Amino acid sequence: MTTLNETHDAALTSWVASANDDTTGFPVQNLPFAVFRKRGSSEAFRPGVAIGDQIVDLAALAKLNLFDGQAAAALNACTADSLNALMALGRTHWSALRLSLSRALRTGSTLQSQIEPLLFAQSDAEYTTPARIGDYTDFYISVHHATNIGKQFRPDNPLLPNYKWVPIGYHGRASSLGVNQQFPRPVGQTRPAAEGEMPQFGPCQRLDYELELGVFVGTGNEQGHRIPLDQADEHVFGLCILNDWSARDIQAWEYQPLGPFLSKNFASTISPWIVTLEALEPFRTAFTRAAGEPQPLPYLASDTNRAQGAYDVQMEVLMTTQASRTAQHAPAHLSASNFRDAYWNIAQLITHHTVNGCNLQPGDLLGTGTLSGPEPDQVGSILELTQGGKTPITLPWGEQRTFLQDGDQIIIRAECRKPGYPRIAFGESAGTVLPAR
Amino acid sequence: MTTLNETHDAALTSWVASANDDTTGFPVQNLPFAVFRKRGSSEAFRPGVAIGDQIVDLAALAKLNLFDGQAAAALNACTADSLNALMALGRTHWSALRLSLSRALRTGSTLQSQIEPLLFAQSDAEYTTPARIGDYTDFYISVHHATNIGKQFRPDNPLLPNYKWVPIGYHGRASSLGVNQQFPRPVGQTRPAAEGEMPQFGPCQRLDYELELGVFVGTGNEQGHRIPLDQADEHVFGLCILNDWSARDIQAWEYQPLGPFLSKNFASTISPWIVTLEALEPFRTAFTRAAGEPQPLPYLASDTNRAQGAYDVQMEVLMTTQASRTAQHAPAHLSASNFRDAYWNIAQLITHHTVNGCNLQPGDLLGTGTLSGPEPDQVGSILELTQGGKTPITLPWGEQRTFLQDGDQIIIRAECRKPGYPRIAFGESAGTVLPAR
Repeated sequence: MTTLNETHDAALTSWVASANDDTTGFPVQNLPFAVFRKRGSSEAFRPGVAIGDQIVDLAALAKLNLFDGQAAAALNACTADSLNALMALGRTHWSALRLSLSRALRTGSTLQSQIEPLLFAQSDAEYTTPARIGDYTDFYISVHHATNIGKQFRPDNPLLPNYKWVPIGYHGRASSLGVNQQFPRPVGQTRPAAEGEMPQFGPCQRLDYELELGVFVGTGNEQGHRIPLDQADEHVFGLCILNDWSARDIQAWEYQPLGPFLSKNFASTISPWIVTLEALEPFRTAFTRAAGEPQPLPYLASDTNRAQGAYDVQMEVLMTTQASRTAQHAPAHLSASNFRDAYWNIAQLITHHTVNGCNLQPGDLLGTGTLSGPEPDQVGSILELTQGGKTPITLPWGEQRTFLQDGDQIIIRAECRKPGYPRIAFGESAGTVLPAR
Repeated sequence: MTTLNETHDAALTSWVASANDDTTGFPVQNLPFAVFRKRGSSEAFRPGVAIGDQIVDLAALAKLNLFDGQAAAALNACTADSLNALMALGRTHWSALRLSLSRALRTGSTLQSQIEPLLFAQSDAEYTTPARIGDYTDFYISVHHATNIGKQFRPDNPLLPNYKWVPIGYHGRASSLGVNQQFPRPVGQTRPAAEGEMPQFGPCQRLDYELELGVFVGTGNEQGHRIPLDQADEHVFGLCILNDWSARDIQAWEYQPLGPFLSKNFASTISPWIVTLEALEPFRTAFTRAAGEPQPLPYLASDTNRAQGAYDVQMEVLMTTQASRTAQHAPAHLSASNFRDAYWNIAQLITHHTVNGCNLQPGDLLGTGTLSGPEPDQVGSILELTQGGKTPITLPWGEQRTFLQDGDQIIIRAECRKPGYPRIAFGESAGTVLPAR
């Protein structure tokens, strides 16, 4: 269990002035990681840490040999085009690097003059997937989403009997994950128009987004060995935002009996920045089941997990369209929800995933599944917002939508806020639908 | 479309004498690829090609600079610890390397004296996964298996309406794929003993194997671009054997609504050797649907695909137990079936997988799903052999089985045979169940 340390001191400020108000959400208490290069260049991608509106180039920083011990070893792992080597080092290394970066970036640091030349403006950067993602697993941990979407696919039987016992998950496609994706509308088979007819084939007519968080695995486990619940957090490097684009009409026809496939694997968009679990420590919160809900089986329950197994992360979905961008309208707010309303938590996902001996590896990504909250304005997909496409939503500039149209852009943001502490933001995941090819 | 060329000449023999009868199934017409090193050593793994009971060390061969042009480029891609770089080069390179290796290993080759010192006895080798498998997809292409197993999970509704239109597939776990696996019996949740009770938790009681073939992707496709049916074969490097171990009791409880997860991802065992698609060219056969079956949708149908879309590959499942190995009994034959009985073929899987823009990458693995044939002795899982565990099978040495016990070993073999042509074998996939941890 990490506890709070000097890096979480709310009073800390940075000599990077833009880090010292809540505008960017990247104060010295956050220090999220990404892999970046100069926008439009053919430079090598390399790891960086955000501070205010700047990026500390970690590959360049490593060359200065300013840090010692585990912090130096961790920094030296940040010279490739992915964070996998850092992720593999483990929690004490991550924590040592965070502490050294925090001290180096604080107001009054003696290292300011050496580090200042290594700063890179975020406005000039482009990003790539921050890790080589070996395996991507998507879970289904919002009971509200499971109930809402279950009604669309199985009106009589929305929530299956296993839901409240098994953290339901399935394997997703790693190759089509990316940042800032622009992807053609998927094409595929959908249900026959009438029984006995051939299936229909063509561009997806019910294209959706899904508001999720992604959990990056740091250290893995050996095949055949499980990770106990109270050690699970030690294996987590950090969290990102995830949009699990979904072709609902393709999904409805293909998903039985083996689950979603082509309806999900054409694109999945993550945010470039990974907020470390240590940065989220001040936002841990109790994880308790409502009265009447079953308690998890013993391998998924512990006092520690109940006391602080959840995270208070607020998320928001926004949308722009071709027309709204042309007219320079602000993005439309579609919904907002909170990670703490999920039915299962991160440690439970790690432990469940490995209980059978399945091996996780550094850089693996676990999606939470759509994080819908209990209220109608807290749903994480347009399928839920429009009651399965039956009730269109009207955007502030007058356009209506049941599902996504070509040119539509979905932006997801996430942040942690509490009184007396700087805002900790995740940046955003942004992706745009192009016409079908 | 590859056609037959001089490497397929049935009359060719090799100066490696053990390649010249059908014992090994590795004649000069086969030339399968693996990644190997000296057994029990800490040598670097490197690619090799089988000839008879020997392996040509390709990393060592590359240093001799014996080949020219595309063959040399292909050979130079065989110096790492995986075949991914070779796979990424594409079909003309693979074919050029095959031709050069065929000429070098033929009786009378002028290169014999230079290559002979690079031979490595298969009996002294150990193998690793031949490629870094980025994504693993498992399909479900035997209509016989789908019907048989559907009866176990959904007695009233074994074959769902989508089966005859959609090549059903789902994403599997890449990290737990391996060769020669010995793995602990998985532990997990299973159905409550009675309605209203808690789920059961403990070691799997219904552990099964699945007889499959694996398809290694060679060249991939760009995200957003599909691979047309008549170009699909060009993207396939070759085939291996795959055993998709399955925990049926865990599967039955977890698989709704998102498909199998922990019931499959604890281990999946492939054969070390990849038989190239070019080596299988003489065993192409017609792919036609029986009278009364629907024809595939246009994107999954072509004259070429109908004329030669299937492969005549014979497979066999064998079993040993702790007791049979102690008593030195020969492995028990459990079943045999043929890949040509599948309802979908390799090109259709590639095309379907990418129709929505999903990107395949070099080294990706596609499993066929369990390849049960139409007859009761052609089923590819013990669930089918024992009618869902209701009718035990008796092994030749007297032991009975409904599902797999600790110590049980499953061996899967595959081969192609036809009159007047040397036997083309795949070697074997072997894996053993250890007690639960």
